[in-house]
Amino acid sequence: MKRVAIGQAGGPTSVINTSLVGFLEHINKNFELYYVENGYTGLVENCFFPLEGSFLRWVRGHKYIPGACLGAGRYEFSDDKVQLAVQNLKAKGIDVLVFIGGNGTMAALEKIGNIAQAINYDLKVVGIPKTVDNDLHGTNHAPGFGSAARYVALATRDISKDLEAMRNFEQVRIIETMGRNTGWLAAASGALKVMPQDGPHLIYVPEKPFTKEMFLLNVQETIEKFGIATVVVSEGVFFKGEKQVEKANVIGRSVLGGISQELESLVKGELDLNARAEILGMNQRCSSTAISSQDQLEAYEVGRKAAELIKMDISGVMVSIQAIYEQNYSFRLTTCQLIDVVNKGERQLPLGYIENPQSYYDWLMPLLGEGIKPFPSARESL
Amino acid sequence: MKRVAIGQAGGPTSVINTSLVGFLEHINKNFELYYVENGYTGLVENCFFPLEGSFLRWVRGHKYIPGACLGAGRYEFSDDKVQLAVQNLKAKGIDVLVFIGGNGTMAALEKIGNIAQAINYDLKVVGIPKTVDNDLHGTNHAPGFGSAARYVALATRDISKDLEAMRNFEQVRIIETMGRNTGWLAAASGALKVMPQDGPHLIYVPEKPFTKEMFLLNVQETIEKFGIATVVVSEGVFFKGEKQVEKANVIGRSVLGGISQELESLVKGELDLNARAEILGMNQRCSSTAISSQDQLEAYEVGRKAAELIKMDISGVMVSIQAIYEQNYSFRLTTCQLIDVVNKGERQLPLGYIENPQSYYDWLMPLLGEGIKPFPSARESL
Repeated sequence: MKRVAIGQAGGPTSVINTSLVGFLEHINKNFELYYVENGYTGLVENCFFPLEGSFLRWVRGHKYIPGACLGAGRYEFSDDKVQLAVQNLKAKGIDVLVFIGGNGTMAALEKIGNIAQAINYDLKVVGIPKTVDNDLHGTNHAPGFGSAARYVALATRDISKDLEAMRNFEQVRIIETMGRNTGWLAAASGALKVMPQDGPHLIYVPEKPFTKEMFLLNVQETIEKFGIATVVVSEGVFFKGEKQVEKANVIGRSVLGGISQELESLVKGELDLNARAEILGMNQRCSSTAISSQDQLEAYEVGRKAAELIKMDISGVMVSIQAIYEQNYSFRLTTCQLIDVVNKGERQLPLGYIENPQSYYDWLMPLLGEGIKPFPSARESL
Repeated sequence: MKRVAIGQAGGPTSVINTSLVGFLEHINKNFELYYVENGYTGLVENCFFPLEGSFLRWVRGHKYIPGACLGAGRYEFSDDKVQLAVQNLKAKGIDVLVFIGGNGTMAALEKIGNIAQAINYDLKVVGIPKTVDNDLHGTNHAPGFGSAARYVALATRDISKDLEAMRNFEQVRIIETMGRNTGWLAAASGALKVMPQDGPHLIYVPEKPFTKEMFLLNVQETIEKFGIATVVVSEGVFFKGEKQVEKANVIGRSVLGGISQELESLVKGELDLNARAEILGMNQRCSSTAISSQDQLEAYEVGRKAAELIKMDISGVMVSIQAIYEQNYSFRLTTCQLIDVVNKGERQLPLGYIENPQSYYDWLMPLLGEGIKPFPSARESL
């Protein structure tokens, strides 16, 4: 009987457990199931455990629960540790390794597959895509993104309404989103905007050069028009010629965060306005209140697809979502080579979407799921 | 025909517009309706406008929309400005002034009523309670609080699940809630916790003395037991002998915020752990995704009640919610004297609730509305 080990890696999402359960509900009894505890850490520290009995039932109870119930997280997966992981997998007699993750995970799977091959260890590797940042190539979009984007769109709509009522006290609100080096999430903030006076009034993404002068001018113009300004900024935005704002640097990985606070200081210092930075934070990737029905469905299906690939003995691939935009949105699942995903690196928000936001929202709306709509627009001026 | 002016003041909530519409749908055609734009600012700057026609329809479209659609906000309502407000009201021929707000608003209404009386201007004043902080006396609880508490309970549940998956990277998460000088909202974070290993592991409220030593010891003990610690702290918490952490001080009002960041630094500096501060922010008071059905219902009814009081020529009161805890929760509406609300000041979380959290949650759960439940508990140890 073949042994399959499955793990989760990176930051959790609202639907990564849905993918896990989609996989578990379609892998059949011909496979002996193991799970890897705490992502890469478990691979290196040899934490493989049978996925069965009451634990399996507990895991399946997480079908619609945010987080990553096997443990995921971040870990400096250096080359010698990858070597060790392969030895551990081999010693445990694992035939197939499945990981749910983003760019780092696909690169890790690709390396693990190569090292195994080099020592004649027949290990199949399959990746299930997951990232709230949507910076993964080889798939139209990644599960986790739709729900995070829904969160950002709703939070921006709601916080904009709040600011409209606070203009005698606070004129500028600067909402900071996740997204790492890409603007997919920040740009999603405008999905429910209808009229120019509605927030967000300004959106900044890392793909476009950004200067202090431009920012202050934009804010001033917005204030002149509407009296208030709701600004959205991706955590990865940086001033031209400067570095990104790091919140911390832990185990070799930059934790971005804090650009909104710099912009708050800038507005307070340079313009005679009161400003507030709002970091949307962890809720973006884990809020149970903003799970997209479409994202949840697709997350489940990519898990199911991975189970099918394993039954067909396929290796070295990531499950890929092909989006079909006809009268109604639909999707089908294919695969792409891990090596292609890795070689293409981080996937940025295309300039076409930045220059023509409506084309981005046409692409985005089906991914946000059902039951969201714009609010009544603000009065044009107060 | 009597002239009624209505306004909204302070920070918006998810349901302050619901109260407004509840009022408008029950005040009859015998009254000529005006609204006050931007809260106290409008009173002082003489911004009274007819509430009719397309604008009235626009307002009624906000029945379930967060924010404060008449404009609210903060304003230094000094005694001479209150005098000016009364003159403006008199000049406009206003017979009844209704405001939806918190402690500051009830004090303002009380003052306005007294000044009017002193100059033989027959002005009736009626208050409709509203505060996410729940620091208002004279009512079992205030509309706005239930939804904010629901937000805090859900966000803490979700963020705790996220942290469980991140233990190899991040061990301590410090969630900061609103609440000003009271712990009602912070304490609500534990409403969906079931087992000791579930977050939140530690909750700090301003009503209880707090020291750095105690905090670090509590975190260390939690880490020893569970490997991670989800900490919730009210924005008003301060170290014994020190001042509250101010984010800003605008127009004479302290904007609290930042204690979570101080605690993050403390953990990073004193314990060998990675920590992250999470400020829940504006979403607590405006998120459309966490509106409590019960809060929404009660918000509507307090508005309706205010309309009834006006028809009965009652003045100098605030609408009050009397909660009835029998087999099922229910409530009835009465009134309390504005002067009593004002004299009692900020209403703190009772020590009985702090010492016996279950008694607090028994009181709280009906207010959080329908459709929320705990998640599966974490495994006891990993």
